Amino acid sequence: MPVSLYIHRLAIVGTGLIGGSLALALKQADVVDEVVGLGRRRETLEQAKALGLIDVIADSSAQLAGADVVVIATPVAQMQCVLRDIAPHLGARAIVTDAGSTKCDVIAAAREALGEKFSRFVAGHPIAGAESNGPQAARSDLFIGRNVVLCPEAKTDPAAADTVTALWQAAGAQVVRMDAGRHDRIFAAVSHLPHLAAFALVDELAARPQAEDFFRYAASGFRDFTRIAGSSPEMWRDIALANREALLAELSAYMNKLGEIAAALENADAAALEQVFSRASKARRNWKENE
Amino acid sequence: MPVSLYIHRLAIVGTGLIGGSLALALKQADVVDEVVGLGRRRETLEQAKALGLIDVIADSSAQLAGADVVVIATPVAQMQCVLRDIAPHLGARAIVTDAGSTKCDVIAAAREALGEKFSRFVAGHPIAGAESNGPQAARSDLFIGRNVVLCPEAKTDPAAADTVTALWQAAGAQVVRMDAGRHDRIFAAVSHLPHLAAFALVDELAARPQAEDFFRYAASGFRDFTRIAGSSPEMWRDIALANREALLAELSAYMNKLGEIAAALENADAAALEQVFSRASKARRNWKENE
Repeated sequence: MPVSLYIHRLAIVGTGLIGGSLALALKQADVVDEVVGLGRRRETLEQAKALGLIDVIADSSAQLAGADVVVIATPVAQMQCVLRDIAPHLGARAIVTDAGSTKCDVIAAAREALGEKFSRFVAGHPIAGAESNGPQAARSDLFIGRNVVLCPEAKTDPAAADTVTALWQAAGAQVVRMDAGRHDRIFAAVSHLPHLAAFALVDELAARPQAEDFFRYAASGFRDFTRIAGSSPEMWRDIALANREALLAELSAYMNKLGEIAAALENADAAALEQVFSRASKARRNWKENE
Repeated sequence: MPVSLYIHRLAIVGTGLIGGSLALALKQADVVDEVVGLGRRRETLEQAKALGLIDVIADSSAQLAGADVVVIATPVAQMQCVLRDIAPHLGARAIVTDAGSTKCDVIAAAREALGEKFSRFVAGHPIAGAESNGPQAARSDLFIGRNVVLCPEAKTDPAAADTVTALWQAAGAQVVRMDAGRHDRIFAAVSHLPHLAAFALVDELAARPQAEDFFRYAASGFRDFTRIAGSSPEMWRDIALANREALLAELSAYMNKLGEIAAALENADAAALEQVFSRASKARRNWKENE
């Protein structure tokens, strides 16, 4: 059943691409009165205010007192500290959600930091991004038609989950709910592993004495395959560590498949190579992003 | 020294994207009188003629007699047969070149098939492509600003190499000469391995019972990383086999690097992960395609 959403005061912790875009989308949808921004860097907050993403810069977490909804959109590695920091200042009815790429670790941190208030925490992951970061990259249409995964726990207040669902829907997203463990396994496979695989390939080349020689002849296939290797090393270090177990399982399955291909190549087994390539090619052609 | 290029009769064997685009570019540059097309499929040749890529459809290799330059732009796996087939019909002054993605194997096939005429064979590889194939995908600007690698051998007539150089330059490309072994090692690293790595990742997912679940949540990172997994399985089977040794060496180096990352992850070694990711991210950002 659709929840009629109205947020008097929305707090955004981390007013970069994700937090800023969400604030902008909710303002445009006219479901929020006032957006308060929090963050480590004053400069970012001032940029966000100048760009109209937020209305008020909070000087400390104490200013969270009147927030109806708090969205944590910082890098994954900061979430534990942020949760501990804001916990004492949350109002009794405040709903807290996040936008991190991994969910089990954030849920564990929220459970520990929020105590009784954990029932009003709804873990979330918007599947959206852009080449650029920071407040200046924010845009109100970033989430339109995108999937947002929410991972409510058994203890989560259903009304809090419904509010967070309505919030992302107001920003134009499609909301899907699933178990946090399943979320982390799926994203280890379709996001975290591809990043690791691209980082590995580029680093392997970059570490060679004649690296420039190789890069010079790289063309469009290389460009596409390695685009994600240009991503933030710190962010991906943290995501990899946060989703370590699921990612190790994916990495191992991937290395097995590469070993299978190496064996087929070693034996000049044309049929085996073609089988792998055909299945992959067919699956890739059938796949439509966010269908 | 620039060679003044003038081709009375150009023969194109395989009038798809590459062969067709080259014919079109050379016609537009006004350096060719007549283009004769050869190929296995009559339908493709008729399409190529209807599109103005070629002027004449050759019914058999015997019609190659008057060709000044023959460009073999078929899939790699067909080159050996094509070379054997055309060899007896080549004129004494005819220059032969190819557009295959691997060079050592094509050179070996040309050496065997062409006999004395091998001195007028110049192995080539245009680093260009497009999402689509076939004559209808051909465009006269496909090679503008692109690298074309030529691999003349010790026995290659320098005048033949200069003519093929001038031909690609007339199509707008930059020509680089290098040893065939070096070519194959470089392209194993920057093209063939990325294709294998993308095929492997997609196949590993596609083979799972819950594959749809995974693909459903894949987003832009996955899209870019796996785009090349949509490539032709037959073509890549043949390229992989043709460049087997160099590719096996690359695959092994890549698997070692992935093993290194797995060990860092296993040990939760944040510094080691960050080092790999940072080096890769920096190298990827510094890389400019065809700079």
